[in-house]
Amino acid sequence: MKLASFQIGRKPTWGVIEGDDALDIGAILGERYPDLKSVIAANALSAVRDAAGKAKRIPTADITWLPVIPNPDKILCIGLNYEMHRKETGRAEVDNPTVFGRFANSQTGHLTNIIRPKVSTHLDFEGELAIIIGKPGRHITQADAWSHIAGYACYNEGSVRDFQRHTHQFTPGKNFPETGGFGPWMMTPDELGDVAPLRLQTRVNGQVVQDATIDQMIFDIPRQIEYCSSFTRLEPGDVIATGTPGGVGAKRTPPLWLKPGDIVEVEIDRLGVLRNGVADEA
Amino acid sequence: MKLASFQIGRKPTWGVIEGDDALDIGAILGERYPDLKSVIAANALSAVRDAAGKAKRIPTADITWLPVIPNPDKILCIGLNYEMHRKETGRAEVDNPTVFGRFANSQTGHLTNIIRPKVSTHLDFEGELAIIIGKPGRHITQADAWSHIAGYACYNEGSVRDFQRHTHQFTPGKNFPETGGFGPWMMTPDELGDVAPLRLQTRVNGQVVQDATIDQMIFDIPRQIEYCSSFTRLEPGDVIATGTPGGVGAKRTPPLWLKPGDIVEVEIDRLGVLRNGVADEA
Repeated sequence: MKLASFQIGRKPTWGVIEGDDALDIGAILGERYPDLKSVIAANALSAVRDAAGKAKRIPTADITWLPVIPNPDKILCIGLNYEMHRKETGRAEVDNPTVFGRFANSQTGHLTNIIRPKVSTHLDFEGELAIIIGKPGRHITQADAWSHIAGYACYNEGSVRDFQRHTHQFTPGKNFPETGGFGPWMMTPDELGDVAPLRLQTRVNGQVVQDATIDQMIFDIPRQIEYCSSFTRLEPGDVIATGTPGGVGAKRTPPLWLKPGDIVEVEIDRLGVLRNGVADEA
Repeated sequence: MKLASFQIGRKPTWGVIEGDDALDIGAILGERYPDLKSVIAANALSAVRDAAGKAKRIPTADITWLPVIPNPDKILCIGLNYEMHRKETGRAEVDNPTVFGRFANSQTGHLTNIIRPKVSTHLDFEGELAIIIGKPGRHITQADAWSHIAGYACYNEGSVRDFQRHTHQFTPGKNFPETGGFGPWMMTPDELGDVAPLRLQTRVNGQVVQDATIDQMIFDIPRQIEYCSSFTRLEPGDVIATGTPGGVGAKRTPPLWLKPGDIVEVEIDRLGVLRNGVADEA
């Protein structure tokens, strides 16, 4: 099943995506589950399936996509998690995942513009696979980790590189408003199947700039969930952005910075294509 | 005025602190303002003042203190912001504040226990002055910064040092559940007055371990607000933990780690004393 958050006109809702249609499940179950996070928390996908038959169908061309989870409690980002990216940044090997946070307002939905801020031109892409947590937990073992995943989505962990490098802490460069593309939808694990062989590709104006398979991660998904849940309680709707492969714009010669009018796509096999334009901050 | 979040029995509410009494303003204004964050967002302190006269008074001995803002959108922490602390950590001077994030569930209230996790004994204190944002904004100038502050509070930015040093990103060590003391209350700027000369002291079992004045900050409060609002929009209820002075446990010989049964206090002149015990994770 593909689940998404979106607006119909100005009204935020959520639902199921089937082909070119968005099913407005929020209109049926919204009193009980006002957003996708709450239905995930209630583990109520069977109610969603039941509602899908009577839901209003809207062409996806007529909706405004929101970040898959617009209001996660936590967005945990794994840095330097593909060997080619670790090498291009010159960082040492480490025994544990590198983790930093994004705030919810740094996200934006499919087909919206990623915003290049006034204070920098060093806006960069980072194509990633995102996990959305379903079952909450602390001290989750690697063996149990898969059972805590509600779904997967494409993520563009957009970064403002000069602010990321102002000090040794990445937070400023990773939290500019509307720089993190997240969508179009999340796909449940039963539909996506084994993620290891899936190919992740990032394209800028059609040119392939990142190309890897998920099994090239240094710390795999169970290890990420084990580590993150060792220091925090994972909640339903929490997002883990699992890291980006080599090829980021900052490490190219010359650097490839995103600029207004560009189109950035993050595609993951079977999962879909997240597409965003780029525009200057108003 | 002193404002706090607390529980009466198991019911969360919020109100005004007067001497040894907590005034349950949430019982009167709670439909309109379910929490302290929402009343700050509405800039409705005059309604709070009006309600105080008819509010139920409960001895503070009978309440359970919650973090001043239990549900901030963002907690931005400023690292290495006192010269003695920068030097004890061996970090280079930088031109911009060092910023990392905490998640809301890493906080705990006055007189609760800070939790030493199962996975580490390297639990450390960091006494700090916290700012609570009132008026939201982006690209706030230093000249305007003070007008965006709703109040001040004591903060113990509790840190798990081995997890903080697993990689170059601090996030894991700064986000263990219930390690960040925040309270007892926030005080409005009109009552606290000029913060520059205020003395900040941290004590462990009565022994002074940190002792500084707020004017010793490397990046002062207006510069912190200017910088943070350059990369994110500050929202009502957002918290900025403004950095800790020298004297942290990790840099002592031998190191002074917090252990079950310890009492940690963060005191700031005129503002109050935040007191927490320490207990092992269940």
